[in-house]
Amino acid sequence: MPEIKNIVVIGAGNVGTRMAMAFQEAGCRIAQVAGRREAAVRDLASRSGAAQTLDFGNVLKHQDLYLLALPDKAMKEILPNLGLSDELLVHTSGSVPMEVLSDYSVNTGVFYPLQTFSTNRQVDMKEVPILIEANRIDNEDRLLSLAHKLSRKVSVADSKRRQRIHIAAVFASNFSNHMYVLARKLMEGNDFDYDMLAPLIKETASKALEMGPDNAQTGPAKREDDEIITQHLELLKDDPALQEMYRLITKSIINQNKA
Amino acid sequence: MPEIKNIVVIGAGNVGTRMAMAFQEAGCRIAQVAGRREAAVRDLASRSGAAQTLDFGNVLKHQDLYLLALPDKAMKEILPNLGLSDELLVHTSGSVPMEVLSDYSVNTGVFYPLQTFSTNRQVDMKEVPILIEANRIDNEDRLLSLAHKLSRKVSVADSKRRQRIHIAAVFASNFSNHMYVLARKLMEGNDFDYDMLAPLIKETASKALEMGPDNAQTGPAKREDDEIITQHLELLKDDPALQEMYRLITKSIINQNKA
Repeated sequence: MPEIKNIVVIGAGNVGTRMAMAFQEAGCRIAQVAGRREAAVRDLASRSGAAQTLDFGNVLKHQDLYLLALPDKAMKEILPNLGLSDELLVHTSGSVPMEVLSDYSVNTGVFYPLQTFSTNRQVDMKEVPILIEANRIDNEDRLLSLAHKLSRKVSVADSKRRQRIHIAAVFASNFSNHMYVLARKLMEGNDFDYDMLAPLIKETASKALEMGPDNAQTGPAKREDDEIITQHLELLKDDPALQEMYRLITKSIINQNKA
Repeated sequence: MPEIKNIVVIGAGNVGTRMAMAFQEAGCRIAQVAGRREAAVRDLASRSGAAQTLDFGNVLKHQDLYLLALPDKAMKEILPNLGLSDELLVHTSGSVPMEVLSDYSVNTGVFYPLQTFSTNRQVDMKEVPILIEANRIDNEDRLLSLAHKLSRKVSVADSKRRQRIHIAAVFASNFSNHMYVLARKLMEGNDFDYDMLAPLIKETASKALEMGPDNAQTGPAKREDDEIITQHLELLKDDPALQEMYRLITKSIINQNKA
């Protein structure tokens, strides 16, 4: 079973870029970058010394791995154009089942990094959990072997398991980040300096990691301080969506107190 | 105007404990700890070498500062028992107006640390923003001077301003932490290891601090990936409260995309 060396990265967004960089650091070669957004493709191809194409019909054949790093919808549009047959084809999505690939190659899998990526932000890939799935045991072995070159935290997870973990990740990352977005909106809407919240954001995450989030919870909802909760809801009355969010999360924290 | 040296701390919970420790490190003396929970009062009194009482009628008179670190409701119950007249009396709440103190002393103020505290967790108080309010300029000067001994980030904020900042802090800290709690619930409910999310939680906070939370946002709602959102809502159908939370925050992220 030859190891994976030459990789075609399809999609030059946050995930495609960070994975390409990580593969390269692990000694792989990025053979080609394919994507729809010209500037992003050019940028990633130049960073990784790879060939590039905007035409998915021109994707190189017979490479060791084809890594799809595209949103759900784009993936479905692009797959029929790739013209692969037995090349190892994987996607990087937490929630898309492996089966969507089965019409496009006989060797398929999933290579899901459990992290939030931004194009220009380096991450320590060694600490990023990578969840692997494959349609055959030999493909699984090849993907596991590649994943171990990148990360210390590799495991196998089927599509159902990966979906559940993805939902948890949405709460832990996308939704917690959105709470910062709303906090910023509240601060700046009142002409306050958002940076004032920086030590609080930092400490909240550190506490949750070190004490566990249940032990770390503080605030009016945790204390079930009805007067303050009522006052906050009243102050949010000009923004009904934000008020509704405050009400729902507060209720959820109070329910958790009882659990 | 004599500087504040001898401090009575009323309330031996998270805030009372961390503030007492910080005052002591700044060279102040904790004269007495008063509170309702015997074990907590004893513990803080012993840590700070202070006298202690469970009877609010026995609070020492004529000290330089009385710091109330109590929930809203408890504060109102306890204030009439203190028997102060002109001693400098402050509370530490983000949302309680300074005026609640005005019947209990002629010298009042607020000393609000913008941070999440837990009894046994040290924080770098130098980085904690402290918001000061006082009923008279001489009291403000005394509180500012004390606050500057603790922190590099001291400012004056009236009750209305402080309330708004407190709501933003609830989103940035209490609500983001609750997202971690829900993520943990989702992981453990499926027998997955919650620690798998640790690198994600760490990176999410770091990204938001370094790039700003708007630039840092990722995920299905940010991409408006309707198929994945629909799939997640379907997978959450056995927990209607969680499903509703997912729906509402997703909608809020999508609205933010348009802003």
